[in-house]
Amino acid sequence: MKGCFITFEGIDGSGKTTQIARMHTFLQEQGYEVILTREPGGTRISDRIRELLLNPEHKEMEEATEVLLYAASRAQHVREKVVPALEKGKIVLCDRFLDASLAYQGYGLGLPLSDILAVNRFATGGVAPDRTYFLELPLEVSQARLATRFASQEGPDRIEQKPSSYHERVYEGFMTLREQYSERIVSVDANRSIEEIQQGLQADILLYLQARKHPVHPS
Amino acid sequence: MKGCFITFEGIDGSGKTTQIARMHTFLQEQGYEVILTREPGGTRISDRIRELLLNPEHKEMEEATEVLLYAASRAQHVREKVVPALEKGKIVLCDRFLDASLAYQGYGLGLPLSDILAVNRFATGGVAPDRTYFLELPLEVSQARLATRFASQEGPDRIEQKPSSYHERVYEGFMTLREQYSERIVSVDANRSIEEIQQGLQADILLYLQARKHPVHPS
Repeated sequence: MKGCFITFEGIDGSGKTTQIARMHTFLQEQGYEVILTREPGGTRISDRIRELLLNPEHKEMEEATEVLLYAASRAQHVREKVVPALEKGKIVLCDRFLDASLAYQGYGLGLPLSDILAVNRFATGGVAPDRTYFLELPLEVSQARLATRFASQEGPDRIEQKPSSYHERVYEGFMTLREQYSERIVSVDANRSIEEIQQGLQADILLYLQARKHPVHPS
Repeated sequence: MKGCFITFEGIDGSGKTTQIARMHTFLQEQGYEVILTREPGGTRISDRIRELLLNPEHKEMEEATEVLLYAASRAQHVREKVVPALEKGKIVLCDRFLDASLAYQGYGLGLPLSDILAVNRFATGGVAPDRTYFLELPLEVSQARLATRFASQEGPDRIEQKPSSYHERVYEGFMTLREQYSERIVSVDANRSIEEIQQGLQADILLYLQARKHPVHPS
C-alpha cells in the first residue's frame, strides 16, 4: 500500500497520547496527509467494544474474552479506517496496535504468544506497522504519573486496575519486543521533557518518510 | 467433566428455541439438574456482545469482526457458565454453539473453515458438545415461518437481514456438518408438529444419558 502505518507503544503513563497528538499536528503543518487514530477504538463499532473492555465493572471478564475483544476491535479498525487511509497514500498514526496485545495479554496475562499471534493474524489480515515508536519510561516513573492522573482526573479503567505485578510483566514484555523487532521498533527515551521527546520524534519521522523504498511526500 | 453438554443447531425458524425450552422442562421434571443457555449470550458480558452483533444498525460490521465477537462471547460463556455447570455434573442445554459459527461464518460468509476453527479453539479452550440435535427443515419452510414472525413480532436482526443466497449457503453448510460429524450430530426432522419432534428428542436424550460411558442420572 502507498501510505505509511506508524504506531506508538509504551506502558500507560509513558506520554504516548501527548506525543502522537503533537506529531499529528507537526506532520499536517509539513503538508502531509495524516490521520490520528487509536486502539482499542477508532471506529463506531470498535469504540463500543472499547467500552466493554475498559469498563471497571466488568471484573468477571475472562482472559480469552479480553484477547478476542481486542482482536475484534482491531479487525474492524484495520479494515474500516487504517487500510482505506493507507490505500489513499496517507500516513496513519495509531496509538497502540499488535505489540500492545503481545505485551498486555501475552506477557501481562501469561497467555501463549502463539495464541495471541494466531488470533491477531486473522484480525489484522496481515496488516502490520511500518515503524513503531516505543516510549520507554521506567515503570516507577509511569506509575507516579498515573497516580497523579487518577487522583486529579478520572479513576483507573479495568486494565489499569490490575495489580502492579501485572504491569511489571507488561513492562518487561515491551522490553523484550523492542529487542525482538529492533528493525521496526524505535526506542525513545520518554524520561525527558515533552519538547525534547517530540523534537527527536520529528527528526526521525522526516528522515524515515524520505528514506523509505516508497517515500511519502507532503502533498 | 461429569456433566453433559448438549447443543441445538439449525437455521433460523427451525424451531430450536421452542424444542430446547420443552426439553429443559422435561429433564427437570425427570429430576435431572439441567441449565438452559444460548449463544451468543448467556452471561452479562456475552449479552452485551450479542447486542453489538445483532444490532441492525451495525451494517458496517466487517466479517472478521463478526467472527471474533462471536468467539469472544463464546469464550466468556464457556468459562463463566458452561464449564462450572458441567463440573457440577449438570446437563447443559445450549441453543447454538460452534457448529453455528462454522455454518454461518464459514459456509455463509465464505471464510476459511480453518480460520474459524483456529479462533474458536482458542475461544472454547477445547470444550465441545457431547451431543448435538440438528433440527432439519427445508429452507423454504423456515423462511415462510420467519416472514410470519417478522410481520407479527419484531423485525429481523442484522444476521437475519442478510440476503437469501447467504441463508442458502448456511443451510448447505449445516447439511455438510451433519455428515461430517455424524457420530455427534443427530439429525431431527423438524417438519413435523412440535409434539412429535419433542417426543423423539425426549426418547433419544434419555437413552443417551443412560448409555454414556459416564451416565448422568436424575438426582
